[in-house]
Amino acid sequence: MKRIIAQPLTAHAFAPFGEVLEAAGTPDKIINAGFCSRYHDRAQLDFGTDGRAGVSIFKAEPRTLPYRLDLLERHPDGSQAFIPMSMTEWLVIVATGDGPEPGAIHAFLAAPGQGINLRRGCWHGVLTPLHAPGLYAVVDRIGTTPNLEEFTLPDPVEVTASA
Amino acid sequence: MKRIIAQPLTAHAFAPFGEVLEAAGTPDKIINAGFCSRYHDRAQLDFGTDGRAGVSIFKAEPRTLPYRLDLLERHPDGSQAFIPMSMTEWLVIVATGDGPEPGAIHAFLAAPGQGINLRRGCWHGVLTPLHAPGLYAVVDRIGTTPNLEEFTLPDPVEVTASA
Repeated sequence: MKRIIAQPLTAHAFAPFGEVLEAAGTPDKIINAGFCSRYHDRAQLDFGTDGRAGVSIFKAEPRTLPYRLDLLERHPDGSQAFIPMSMTEWLVIVATGDGPEPGAIHAFLAAPGQGINLRRGCWHGVLTPLHAPGLYAVVDRIGTTPNLEEFTLPDPVEVTASA
Repeated sequence: MKRIIAQPLTAHAFAPFGEVLEAAGTPDKIINAGFCSRYHDRAQLDFGTDGRAGVSIFKAEPRTLPYRLDLLERHPDGSQAFIPMSMTEWLVIVATGDGPEPGAIHAFLAAPGQGINLRRGCWHGVLTPLHAPGLYAVVDRIGTTPNLEEFTLPDPVEVTASA
């Protein structure tokens, strides 16, 4: 089985797929009399012309590494942000390509405190927490279209952590 | 000093101020081949006609109870959702009233895994985590107006936990 080693999640490495949502670097604004740093407007949200933003809560079962990947999906009509509600590592799987078939698969190990926003139409694996409780807030498109395409990999891939 | 005892955060008690964002009750949808529950579209987002949704990250210094409250604020042009990125209790302070002066003050102790969405214009205290890291994702209005009103309480209030 082909093997992919999950890389550390960084804004630079993830840029082709979307944004990393984290309190990194210099805050854009200090608010609340100095008690709070605001890292402002960090996700390129895109819900098209007939969709709107919504906040949903996802509760997913934790997985273990190595992880067997056999399915990718994408949402052609909107971006999708995942915000972990626990300070735990989790696995992010994405693939290149805008067409009906995903291209090269990339895996990232998100550190505690890192969320992501997937660009509209970005191929990705399903939500894969590595620890309980597997709780995430999801900011994605609310609309009337199915907004889901799935692609079953002809050959499953094994995703591992770096040594 | 007047004292307010923080109450448990429940959807019912918080309804006058907005929504509790949590994985509670029956999920709206089971996705990802049974591995994930989706609690769908749980926040009444409202960014007016000339605003848009944005995701920002807030990092706030943890506070301790009893907490001395002397300032409330509100955002007249948009709702504001706070999603904790750690599984820790935190303090939510809100007040009734739609006018330029807040009415009755209410305090809630949010349990680990509970976020909130404040209705547009709802008077509230600044972000008050009770534990490190004080990391939150905030879904609020991105726009060109100041979108901030502040009210200094003539008499500070002490917020405590229940015994």
